[in-house]
Amino acid sequence: MSGTYPEHLREEVERHLQALAFPGEQITAGLVEAMRYSLLAGGKRIRPVLALATARAVGMEPAQVLPLAAALELIHTYSLIHDDLPAMDDDDLRRGQPTCHVRYGEDVAILAGDGLYAEAFNHLLSHQHAPAERLLAAAAELAAATGVVGMVGGQYADVTAEDGLRGSQLRRLHELKTGRLIGASVLCVLLLSGADEAPDGPGTEPFRSFAAELGVLFQIIDDILDVTGTDAELGKPRGSDARHGKRTYVSEYGIERARELAAESHTAAKAALAEVSARVPAGGVGAATEDPTAELAGIADFIYTRTS
Amino acid sequence: MSGTYPEHLREEVERHLQALAFPGEQITAGLVEAMRYSLLAGGKRIRPVLALATARAVGMEPAQVLPLAAALELIHTYSLIHDDLPAMDDDDLRRGQPTCHVRYGEDVAILAGDGLYAEAFNHLLSHQHAPAERLLAAAAELAAATGVVGMVGGQYADVTAEDGLRGSQLRRLHELKTGRLIGASVLCVLLLSGADEAPDGPGTEPFRSFAAELGVLFQIIDDILDVTGTDAELGKPRGSDARHGKRTYVSEYGIERARELAAESHTAAKAALAEVSARVPAGGVGAATEDPTAELAGIADFIYTRTS
Repeated sequence: MSGTYPEHLREEVERHLQALAFPGEQITAGLVEAMRYSLLAGGKRIRPVLALATARAVGMEPAQVLPLAAALELIHTYSLIHDDLPAMDDDDLRRGQPTCHVRYGEDVAILAGDGLYAEAFNHLLSHQHAPAERLLAAAAELAAATGVVGMVGGQYADVTAEDGLRGSQLRRLHELKTGRLIGASVLCVLLLSGADEAPDGPGTEPFRSFAAELGVLFQIIDDILDVTGTDAELGKPRGSDARHGKRTYVSEYGIERARELAAESHTAAKAALAEVSARVPAGGVGAATEDPTAELAGIADFIYTRTS
Repeated sequence: MSGTYPEHLREEVERHLQALAFPGEQITAGLVEAMRYSLLAGGKRIRPVLALATARAVGMEPAQVLPLAAALELIHTYSLIHDDLPAMDDDDLRRGQPTCHVRYGEDVAILAGDGLYAEAFNHLLSHQHAPAERLLAAAAELAAATGVVGMVGGQYADVTAEDGLRGSQLRRLHELKTGRLIGASVLCVLLLSGADEAPDGPGTEPFRSFAAELGVLFQIIDDILDVTGTDAELGKPRGSDARHGKRTYVSEYGIERARELAAESHTAAKAALAEVSARVPAGGVGAATEDPTAELAGIADFIYTRTS
């Protein structure tokens, strides 16, 4: 049985992003325009929606973590802008529209990415309500997840790897490039909520397993879609990985084995959620008539079955 | 009378930067190498030295703010790497050695900048000792100072301005591009120390004035040196501003008036320090047999009289 993507959470994220007020003045208005151009280009908002769904699973109101959720999407957008640059993947289309540097020029695109990253921390640190110790821990996790042992390190390995990385190094590359930020979308909520310290809660372990499997699943499906998707579905030309000579789960294992690996990760992610549900005590934090992990399950199912 | 630059503080910063352990693994080793190449290229380390000197002025041990100081220099280095990129100022030399993209390629240079920024927050949030509320306030100030209403916004205005900005807009550009991070080097220490709340301390106002004047002074001297310095002194070709068609204090006011403006800012910066000294009560926080602002005065004098 397949759950559905929590569109109500995506809409909540979308409204929050639309309403984000970047401090504006005349000489920087064009920068803010470029940042918003890329930020508001749509998409499923998987990372912020994950954060909101995780909040529900630990007994918080999803809206309580909207500033964190926005920070995650700002950071994701920044990474897309920099990845698309001529010196990197040199992609002209993203989500069916010209990439930031095609629209605004390379210099502005670099700065739009830089600005989004800075404003992500600015927004998180200025607007996220939580005890100071917890907010610090979440911000530190976000910085680590996007640094050398995270997103930027993974992107470095990706652009410099050529055809050198295989097997465990390929998995490590993707763990850094996409897995760490997806993981942080879950982990930062646990840190904000104090769920990692609650003696009668489900603990962080099943959440960590879930996030790790989800990261792997996301990447495998991404690699498969780059081979099987249509340009219209993808919003960019198909076969970009092969043209860049990139090793992927498909080039490494073949498409059939890649599909099996995806199925295994999906099963493992759902099993981790079942463990969360089993550990939430009746009447305790997160207890509800509905399964508090239903939205997380919907995200996993969506990632597994998505076609774009 | 002219004070001397606090070389002992610069050496302390240098040792801390040299010893910074960037988490390393095989697939990201080249990224860390590029980051360290630019980070350890020398320089006067004005921002971190300012932070250490401010710590002394509010009665802390300078070494207590070394993680913040390192974060400031990581961020400054990131901004230099991105500013030098072909799509921005397209500079080949920095501090007498090939710029990061010349040495490692444009893709790696973009990511080295991105990585330095992430690791700056990672280092600050993970290693700076301070009450959680104060550390949060300092981190938020650092994010704001480097975002749209700060360093990145100023750089945007600089690369897009062509010859459009004059007078107050030119001053605002530099306030954002260089002034805000120089200001944050002082302000973050006040936030960490709680000096902004101490009822018998000098308060933050004279420090803010000092930092603001120092930022202006730094920029005017930078503009003057771009016209009067030698390539060897500057570590890069002279006349870069004119070649890029940039408006500077020199192009705007002429070199004689620019020198007068520098003198005025230097005088105002020193006056602000005198106010700090006058307000520190005998026997109170920061009281010492020596003037606790002597190192800050040395920095202001150095910036005013520097030739490179």
